[in-house]
Amino acid sequence: MATVEELKLRVRELENELIKCKQKQCAAEDAHSQALNRPKIDKMSAEVVDSNPYSRLMALKRMGIVDDYERIRTFTVAVVGVGGVGSVTAEMLTRCGIGKLLLFDYDKVELANMNRLFFQPHQAGLSKVEAAEHTLRNINPDVSFETHNYNITTMENFTHFMDRISHGGLEEGKPVDLVLSCVDNFEARMAINTACNELGQIWMESGVSENAVSGHIQLIIPGETACFACAPPLVVAANIDEKTLKREGVCAASLPTTMGVVAGLLVQNVLKYLLKFGTVSYYLGYNAMQDFFPAMAMKANPQCNDRHCRRQQEEYKRKEAERPKVEVVQEEEEVVHEDNEWGIELVSEVTEEELKAASGTVPDLPEGITVAYTIPTEEKADGETVEETEQSLEELMAQMKKL
Amino acid sequence: MATVEELKLRVRELENELIKCKQKQCAAEDAHSQALNRPKIDKMSAEVVDSNPYSRLMALKRMGIVDDYERIRTFTVAVVGVGGVGSVTAEMLTRCGIGKLLLFDYDKVELANMNRLFFQPHQAGLSKVEAAEHTLRNINPDVSFETHNYNITTMENFTHFMDRISHGGLEEGKPVDLVLSCVDNFEARMAINTACNELGQIWMESGVSENAVSGHIQLIIPGETACFACAPPLVVAANIDEKTLKREGVCAASLPTTMGVVAGLLVQNVLKYLLKFGTVSYYLGYNAMQDFFPAMAMKANPQCNDRHCRRQQEEYKRKEAERPKVEVVQEEEEVVHEDNEWGIELVSEVTEEELKAASGTVPDLPEGITVAYTIPTEEKADGETVEETEQSLEELMAQMKKL
Repeated sequence: MATVEELKLRVRELENELIKCKQKQCAAEDAHSQALNRPKIDKMSAEVVDSNPYSRLMALKRMGIVDDYERIRTFTVAVVGVGGVGSVTAEMLTRCGIGKLLLFDYDKVELANMNRLFFQPHQAGLSKVEAAEHTLRNINPDVSFETHNYNITTMENFTHFMDRISHGGLEEGKPVDLVLSCVDNFEARMAINTACNELGQIWMESGVSENAVSGHIQLIIPGETACFACAPPLVVAANIDEKTLKREGVCAASLPTTMGVVAGLLVQNVLKYLLKFGTVSYYLGYNAMQDFFPAMAMKANPQCNDRHCRRQQEEYKRKEAERPKVEVVQEEEEVVHEDNEWGIELVSEVTEEELKAASGTVPDLPEGITVAYTIPTEEKADGETVEETEQSLEELMAQMKKL
Repeated sequence: MATVEELKLRVRELENELIKCKQKQCAAEDAHSQALNRPKIDKMSAEVVDSNPYSRLMALKRMGIVDDYERIRTFTVAVVGVGGVGSVTAEMLTRCGIGKLLLFDYDKVELANMNRLFFQPHQAGLSKVEAAEHTLRNINPDVSFETHNYNITTMENFTHFMDRISHGGLEEGKPVDLVLSCVDNFEARMAINTACNELGQIWMESGVSENAVSGHIQLIIPGETACFACAPPLVVAANIDEKTLKREGVCAASLPTTMGVVAGLLVQNVLKYLLKFGTVSYYLGYNAMQDFFPAMAMKANPQCNDRHCRRQQEEYKRKEAERPKVEVVQEEEEVVHEDNEWGIELVSEVTEEELKAASGTVPDLPEGITVAYTIPTEEKADGETVEETEQSLEELMAQMKKL
């Protein structure tokens, strides 16, 4: 039988052991997250030391590429769709030291996503925005993150989405600087288009074909360039029947290569646009089968179905008329094609030889670029009616879906 | 004063708590590593379920892009240099389900690498090959990995490197299927070139400029296309003084965008080459400032300084003469330029307009592509002498370095 003294000793022993165990437990729990963290950095430095995560970016100044790289920290970018293209897009912007990222997605990570970059098998089951934020925060704690785990195409979420685009900037209340569409379906693209037209928000669209071997990026400046409702969405032809827009019931193929290239071209265009270097591309396609890259630009369509697009066009015209002669960032040469119904203006940057194989179903589109579908002729007559009626978003969406 | 019964109760309480704590500690320690694993998959399936990591790759067959996607598992690729391009290259191949990867690098992960994809801050201090293997194994446990933490350019390591290229295939003793150069310096490129010429090993080279805004990929088939010693290395012009090859003492700029695009184009070319789809590119450049992508092909130089290159050329000629008419995978149209000293054969795929801005220092290179340096004229005369002498690798390297 144990004496009181023996029992007291045992209690003390156990108490000590328990304290040690709890410390170890905490340590084990924290080890991973602690290890992942680096302290925040107040000011970007160009110092060339191994411990400086910004040295190779600040070197862009010394190399004469970017005048003021630090400005990157003042920008907010919204990434809609955190899948194969959007996740890599968010990671690139995070590593470049962007000020703030807003991430929108309602999907969960699945093992079926593992053939694309970014997500890892242990994240299966987590929401994409949650998993992405965790990874990205560890990669660069200097970036601010705001995530929204919802579908932007429902009425309530759409209103919230609009609100965050117009007020979710780095300084709360200010709009974001750029919206990036990295979604994989028509409804979501149209919702982004509708929101950006109403807000006059500049955005970039991206897409990868269902067969995984082509993709594109596109810059949309409301009122100036064609919006997603001005003309049928453009895709890159690859000599095979394909559509950029996901058809229901079809399991699309995907490749980390094509999605990585599209994300890279997209974020490169974002950097050029925000930091003012090089030539910003209006539309850049990628045909992986032949390694060719058709480029073009397209003016807004005065008969666009979206009344906010038409309003932005009027505003753009008025502003252009007001100011004497303003230099545009883009320095491309423009070739006007008057003879097409969409008022499409093209700058072909590919040779005839290059494009031999590409199908050209719509006149005056550079070969190699084609439309995702054609619009029935009777739809054109509806244009005026839409202008007069105050249609709800859902009605508009339903109508657009019919196209 | 506590009674014996009270103390006994306390002992039991503490013992229970301690057991619970130890369980939690174990759980916390194991949670991360356990969560990372998925079971190995014996046979690639096309089944469209969320839990199938290969469904979107196998869909390439249904989409008519690839005849036999499963063949990917039979191939071995060596990636030399696991930096900004090499790490993403290895990750893409891993996610595509490549059979085996050999990784070569002697660098450590630093925070200064965090402006490129793949490595994470908590890996700082680890060797790049070790950190990469850990991450990649968790992403896809079906891939075999072999890592070598050494500099391939020292004599002893070079011999071992040659041995692993020629014997490190999926089935030990067989050669690898492809070598990818993702290194950032001249010596390492030359070492790979020397090894592949001697072994008749097909390889692909990649590079990103010091100013971070251009890059290229190149397919080298010993005896058939120009090797790295046949002509000065080609780089993409960007209207600014630049060299692909890292100069000593200069902190190069880098961007995750450019490196991601180059890795994507490289692995896409690898997939097209291994799985026989699309057109494999011989040389594809990427100018990020103007978003243009010059392409070309270049024949081997009969006066090449590398005697193994000349031997492979003889062998290639003999084989070509022997077989009647063999279809080549690549279907490009060739334009022969007889009037240049390098026997360079070009296929320009860019328009005059596109290339206005690009500098063209060497005749008969498509504008937009230029050489990293020019070769002093007296070197040409040495060609014959090199053929006669049995120079050591180190002597050759020293000589090449002088160029």
